[in-house]
Amino acid sequence: MGIEALTKEAPLGWPTPKPVHMSSRIRLARDLHNKPFPNWLKPSEKKDVLSICKNALSGIRALKQALFIEVPALEEQERQFLVERHLISRELAESKSGSAVMITPDQTCSIMINEEDHLRLQVLSGEMNFKALWEKIDALDTQIEEKLDIAFSSRLGYLTACPTNVGTGMRASAMLHLPGLVMSSQVDKVVRAVNQLGIAVRGMYGEGSEAVGSIFQISNQQTLGASEAEILKRLTSVLDSIIEQELNARTKLIETHSPRLFDKIGRAYGTLRNGHMVSSSEALNLLSLIRLAIDLGMLPQSYWTLVDRISIELQPAHLQYASNPQISVNERDIIRALRLREAFKTLPELDFDFPLKKV
Amino acid sequence: MGIEALTKEAPLGWPTPKPVHMSSRIRLARDLHNKPFPNWLKPSEKKDVLSICKNALSGIRALKQALFIEVPALEEQERQFLVERHLISRELAESKSGSAVMITPDQTCSIMINEEDHLRLQVLSGEMNFKALWEKIDALDTQIEEKLDIAFSSRLGYLTACPTNVGTGMRASAMLHLPGLVMSSQVDKVVRAVNQLGIAVRGMYGEGSEAVGSIFQISNQQTLGASEAEILKRLTSVLDSIIEQELNARTKLIETHSPRLFDKIGRAYGTLRNGHMVSSSEALNLLSLIRLAIDLGMLPQSYWTLVDRISIELQPAHLQYASNPQISVNERDIIRALRLREAFKTLPELDFDFPLKKV
Repeated sequence: MGIEALTKEAPLGWPTPKPVHMSSRIRLARDLHNKPFPNWLKPSEKKDVLSICKNALSGIRALKQALFIEVPALEEQERQFLVERHLISRELAESKSGSAVMITPDQTCSIMINEEDHLRLQVLSGEMNFKALWEKIDALDTQIEEKLDIAFSSRLGYLTACPTNVGTGMRASAMLHLPGLVMSSQVDKVVRAVNQLGIAVRGMYGEGSEAVGSIFQISNQQTLGASEAEILKRLTSVLDSIIEQELNARTKLIETHSPRLFDKIGRAYGTLRNGHMVSSSEALNLLSLIRLAIDLGMLPQSYWTLVDRISIELQPAHLQYASNPQISVNERDIIRALRLREAFKTLPELDFDFPLKKV
Repeated sequence: MGIEALTKEAPLGWPTPKPVHMSSRIRLARDLHNKPFPNWLKPSEKKDVLSICKNALSGIRALKQALFIEVPALEEQERQFLVERHLISRELAESKSGSAVMITPDQTCSIMINEEDHLRLQVLSGEMNFKALWEKIDALDTQIEEKLDIAFSSRLGYLTACPTNVGTGMRASAMLHLPGLVMSSQVDKVVRAVNQLGIAVRGMYGEGSEAVGSIFQISNQQTLGASEAEILKRLTSVLDSIIEQELNARTKLIETHSPRLFDKIGRAYGTLRNGHMVSSSEALNLLSLIRLAIDLGMLPQSYWTLVDRISIELQPAHLQYASNPQISVNERDIIRALRLREAFKTLPELDFDFPLKKV
């Protein structure tokens, strides 16, 4: 089965338009107790695991409508497309055999099979509400554990391929848009502070990726010696604090360096509306500034959805998938600029008075 | 006498709106035959020369309305203002005593006293017509020579402070806007070719200045062994050839690299309309691209005048002069961006189809 059904619509489940917080995610790592971890499986064993998992998952009600996709059978651009939607990891995209993913039609839930662990469950939401997300993934996990024999130690908790996941097997994260902290050079300070609380800060695509567009992924490091509820509570309180610092940074920027801030936003606006060659990372940086402009009241809030949708759609594989035949990077930059000009053609003029009056 | 009268209006005599050629200039170097050249004059002698020249010039009909300005009495920003209008040289602006300039109200004619030579006459025009310019400056020179004893050798011609001016004492130049040759990396080739014909290519403010905004000053090197008419004829034919090469380069750019060209123009347009901090040299580069857009038919020709006027008015001393009190470079960049946004607020959208249809 291909991914056509997914490419035809935007992932409507997220993000929800609002400042700073963009989306939240919880993922659980689970492994079959009587099988070696995926990296130790022989090809035939890997197929067995895949088939066992597929059978079990297909009997679960919440996954009735889900697409089952064998990743190695996909074209390179299709795999990249799923990575860009955060539905599979970069690691799974590179897998050569025996791996798959199940994705619900609303794209808020996916289950990777034979990634680092036998199963990686993930739920996504535009809301910050980790309690609701936890209830959703916990219910799914309970049903899965009714059908599969999951590796669990009464002393350690869930046993996973990498020791950093042992215990809850849970990684919860939120995407935060932090242009204020970036512009006022406070990100490093914030990262150091939250690291000491066992919280990691990464770029948009997790470990090792860059924070293009001032978007950061904030997640728990700890999985052992604390309950899921405790971990989520601590993460939420750190996120609340980062969001507050970001809002303070924005207020200070407006009060003290407005021409520099306004210049960045104005030029981004001008380039989106008039550029003819725009790379993927430049687009994300420009859209990040437009998102900030909306947050600050310089543009109507109704444009939040457009900015978020187009941030997803203009990624390389999304553009490539929408184009036929194969196009070069150069052509992609030209098409991306065209889409941006069309999308923002009717955007009203920036209102630079508003934030000043407000502060 | 100050320069208020000059600051209140734009130099209407030039440039004339049209593609590539922006303005033409002829200057003559003349020296009194019984006085050392200015750099060899003692302060009291310099004053004598100034007074002799002033008396003679004040009796000339064409200079009846001209302002007589003692340069050392001016504020730094006033001297810089005159340099930015090409009414005095950088050298004269730095002079400490005994120097002056006469400027006609329409700012198309100026006479520097005690620059490198005792007299430097200059006429400016928006037209390429060097014959008309020559007739104008020759008539002025004739009247001056009726009143002053000018150093002249029947063998060499006019004797001047620097040997490179001996003979005709004439330097004729044109400002050309050559973005096509710059973008297609052909400027060096053109410079080498015209150098071999005794023609110099310099930046906007003559020797040693940079070609900001793709604007180049093209002038004759030769002053000895040829008549003024011959020199002007040769210069005109070289200018015609450069203009043709520029127009060819533009056509090729549109035919082969349009996205890159359009991207540069589009971003310039976007930044002019939305930037909040723009330096003087960036402004010239942006305006240069807008001028090109008008030439190519992407914007109405009625905007040529605005672009040319604002290119002059947004120079540092012009902005400083229009502002009270003293402002910092940073504040100047903010005011410059504000002026640009206001000036181009009503500019229509770029028409990118037009040049393609045309080619």
